[in-house]
Amino acid sequence: MSAEKYTVGVDFGTLSGRALVVRVSDGEQIAVAEHAYRHGVITDTLPGGGRRLAPQWALQIPEDYLDVLRHAVPEAVANAGVDVGDIIGIGTDFTACTMIPVDGDGTPLYQLDGFADRPHAYGKLWRHHSPQPQADHINAVAARRAEQWLPRYGGLISSEWEFAKGLEIFDEDPHVYRSMEHFVEAADWIVWQLCGNYVRNACSAGYKGIRQDGRYPSREFLAELRPGFQDFVTEKLDAPIGRLGDRAGGLTAQAARWTGLPQGIPVAVGNVDAHVTVAAADALEGGQLVAIMGTSTCHVMNGEVLREVPGMCGVVDGGISEGSWGYEAGQSGVGDIFGWFVENCVPESYHVEARRRGISLHEHLTDLAGRQRVGEHGLVALDWHSGNRSVLVDHELSGVMIGQTLHTTCVDMYRALLEATAFGTRMIVDTFIGSGVPVEELVVAGGLLKNKLLMQIYADVVGLPLSTVPSAQAPALGAAIHAAVAAGAYHDVRTAAAAMGSRTRNAYLPVPENVEAYDRLYREYVAAYEWFGRGNDMMRRLRRIGTPEPVGALQ
Amino acid sequence: MSAEKYTVGVDFGTLSGRALVVRVSDGEQIAVAEHAYRHGVITDTLPGGGRRLAPQWALQIPEDYLDVLRHAVPEAVANAGVDVGDIIGIGTDFTACTMIPVDGDGTPLYQLDGFADRPHAYGKLWRHHSPQPQADHINAVAARRAEQWLPRYGGLISSEWEFAKGLEIFDEDPHVYRSMEHFVEAADWIVWQLCGNYVRNACSAGYKGIRQDGRYPSREFLAELRPGFQDFVTEKLDAPIGRLGDRAGGLTAQAARWTGLPQGIPVAVGNVDAHVTVAAADALEGGQLVAIMGTSTCHVMNGEVLREVPGMCGVVDGGISEGSWGYEAGQSGVGDIFGWFVENCVPESYHVEARRRGISLHEHLTDLAGRQRVGEHGLVALDWHSGNRSVLVDHELSGVMIGQTLHTTCVDMYRALLEATAFGTRMIVDTFIGSGVPVEELVVAGGLLKNKLLMQIYADVVGLPLSTVPSAQAPALGAAIHAAVAAGAYHDVRTAAAAMGSRTRNAYLPVPENVEAYDRLYREYVAAYEWFGRGNDMMRRLRRIGTPEPVGALQ
Repeated sequence: MSAEKYTVGVDFGTLSGRALVVRVSDGEQIAVAEHAYRHGVITDTLPGGGRRLAPQWALQIPEDYLDVLRHAVPEAVANAGVDVGDIIGIGTDFTACTMIPVDGDGTPLYQLDGFADRPHAYGKLWRHHSPQPQADHINAVAARRAEQWLPRYGGLISSEWEFAKGLEIFDEDPHVYRSMEHFVEAADWIVWQLCGNYVRNACSAGYKGIRQDGRYPSREFLAELRPGFQDFVTEKLDAPIGRLGDRAGGLTAQAARWTGLPQGIPVAVGNVDAHVTVAAADALEGGQLVAIMGTSTCHVMNGEVLREVPGMCGVVDGGISEGSWGYEAGQSGVGDIFGWFVENCVPESYHVEARRRGISLHEHLTDLAGRQRVGEHGLVALDWHSGNRSVLVDHELSGVMIGQTLHTTCVDMYRALLEATAFGTRMIVDTFIGSGVPVEELVVAGGLLKNKLLMQIYADVVGLPLSTVPSAQAPALGAAIHAAVAAGAYHDVRTAAAAMGSRTRNAYLPVPENVEAYDRLYREYVAAYEWFGRGNDMMRRLRRIGTPEPVGALQ
Repeated sequence: MSAEKYTVGVDFGTLSGRALVVRVSDGEQIAVAEHAYRHGVITDTLPGGGRRLAPQWALQIPEDYLDVLRHAVPEAVANAGVDVGDIIGIGTDFTACTMIPVDGDGTPLYQLDGFADRPHAYGKLWRHHSPQPQADHINAVAARRAEQWLPRYGGLISSEWEFAKGLEIFDEDPHVYRSMEHFVEAADWIVWQLCGNYVRNACSAGYKGIRQDGRYPSREFLAELRPGFQDFVTEKLDAPIGRLGDRAGGLTAQAARWTGLPQGIPVAVGNVDAHVTVAAADALEGGQLVAIMGTSTCHVMNGEVLREVPGMCGVVDGGISEGSWGYEAGQSGVGDIFGWFVENCVPESYHVEARRRGISLHEHLTDLAGRQRVGEHGLVALDWHSGNRSVLVDHELSGVMIGQTLHTTCVDMYRALLEATAFGTRMIVDTFIGSGVPVEELVVAGGLLKNKLLMQIYADVVGLPLSTVPSAQAPALGAAIHAAVAAGAYHDVRTAAAAMGSRTRNAYLPVPENVEAYDRLYREYVAAYEWFGRGNDMMRRLRRIGTPEPVGALQ
């Protein structure tokens, strides 16, 4: 055996899983392998030409997750060229909240006789949005009862989370509801498959399962939600809680066969993709706000104190790492707004020119936008094309573009949208600070890192030094760090992250003259934000005017 | 000689002149001919490779106007196949305010020795916008002195008008200022060339020359504007006023040679293109609002009473026809906003599809937009891409698009812009009504008539029956009607318009369910209008943020 040890981190995303072999001593990323889910996201019909699904449904086949263990993990290990005997642990992270109804030994219901044609027997992906009526009802009842946990979620429980998804099954398929012995986060199900133990990770239990101060919502609350639903927590949800970085168990013989890893090595407690990135960035201290920027942005940050911060997605004790309050905030639309714009608002001549240059439209527009002085375009936009999560928590808001003239170009508007999302992040940062939770550094991970103009705009707009996370597989690295802790190589996640995680500090520094100009532009953003977001109901009304009245009243 | 008589109307536009032969008995348009100005609009350098012009300059060569008399008039008469002896009069209309500095016999200064290289010696087209500092100064002084005429122009004298253009010459080329014996509206200059008499038409003298209640701005006001400018009216501007439809004189021998028309036939007093269209539409009664819709929209309407209506371009006694108060309002941007959008905001696939269908992008988008229910797009826009003339009189406002989502298409936004301009017209109509000037019928002329969806939207939004003016040469027809009056074929313009002008009544009627939905959407437009237009200075500030501070203070 060599002196060097390794762990494997496996990041389960929306369309594929990626396995990463990491050196424990310094976090060096030795090799990666990816495996796409065979069934991807199921939105139309059940597999095998089965039942059609309603709009907003998004299912997955948990068997696909196991294929990642079977293919991506051995491939990564082979690519790494390391002695498999030097691999001392495995950790995972997952999309959330992705839920699977299972029987007593963890078998997904859809695999049991008689359940294959029942949509509710499958895995429900995070973006399965059909239980919005259930979420609305949960929020209404919780607000009426002034449930103490509600402010910790910005006053709104999402249709994506455990209770809305569970209540949907209760309402729509009582047979599945009765038959499921557990309703399991995919993050925990995969760990169960690896080590044979069902352990609920503290992160998703807190953020997605409304577990606060060691308790879930009460039986009284559940009964008031729906008669018969009062046992949801005790019968379907509850399980031992595992702290992040703890050992959930040892790799089973079966999982050792799947992965080719040594039987019995520690398997870390499950985790969530955004939250695990904080370790990869070595940004576990209070004041280090980690923004994972992609189609949307998730902001996660440890804080030493509990504060109720308006518009948060959640604040959870130990939700990012033990001993701190983990804050989560979010912007509903970021990269997908840029994508929408490029798809819908860019004239032909720019397409032609981008092709001539052999670059993407995004790159072409960014290049042109980067030549402008701050504010030169005379525009300010609101980045609410898919609503506003933090801090307004209103998914019926919409986008605005202010200041167009007959000289306004698509480059101007593209830049204004880049800036609008930066203003959205600044609003979140200002809200943290205004609530007594300091923010001192902006740490960026995710796909949008590659847009250097965007990063400089964020530094200039937020007015903080911006660090970047160099790893292209930051969540998998974070999972491998947690595996190293579970394996006992480090005492805690903080120590492990310091050794194995990394970020490039001061990758972008605010340029003082830009900061000043953006301060002026941000004031206009705030004025529009207040007026459209809090001052009136125009956007909600605009959505109604063209919508035919429903024929019957809703139940 | 046959029993039928004819007149010729000549419409002098921005790029060409059009001559129309019209039957006096019924307004039948017999033949038309067009002649493009050889020099078009001069914006870069003086002819013959001369001096470079500053930005915003727009000059014309009055000799080009005479070419229209030499070519278009004989060609139209030839095309008409009528006996030239049956042509009993000629009338004209012109862009305004287009001004020419001339010597005592009407020769433009640039034609005199030593003036060819002096930019101020040429004709200044209506859209010569460089005298904005002069206009700002005029407005500031007039407001400070509380000049009684100021409210009749919505509180703002335009940089396009006579006093700003004259003061610019005074400030920048004293030699030209001293040398010009008259500063003449092109509308009156062409009449001067036709009949040898310099008669100022009541329309442009009132709207563009600040002539109210028989008086121009006082010597005291002029002296306060600029020492030495106090004689501008008496020395450069004043001349006998001709009422619209009056005979200015008889066709001179020289003009008869140019045109091929009989020497001595009556030449009508000059007129302005928008205002003369009211006669072509036979819409001279109070309450008939004529909207000439093209790149911008000009609204003209007779009223029986004088009211100070906020944001009007002007109200002039006899400004449209004798015995009524002529109101003029305007929307700075209409067709040019649609043009901007098509040019800058439509993705490649729509270009490809429009080409496949063999139609223009405007037609393609209009076709798709026409399939939507009112309000279906969830958008509302402000149509201020080139500022707002009526009723806010603020050229520093800008456009807004509210309500975009990730599902918003260019078709949605195109329709929202069509609607925004209709809301802009409704705002003007409501302002008239609210000020005690009734509006009962919307009469549309101009190039945008061809967009049937746009017309239906206007009827639905304004909630009034919409008439259309069938003539493709409505201004020239209006000029020919005035020629018939000048020739004595009719007693007055009203009678002549009834016989020779026409409009298609009720071409579009409001659809009640659309009216109702648009009422809701209009309320959102009004809320945004008030907030952006009156509630704050955001748009003005947005224009400043990216503009470098000027190095020195302005004089």
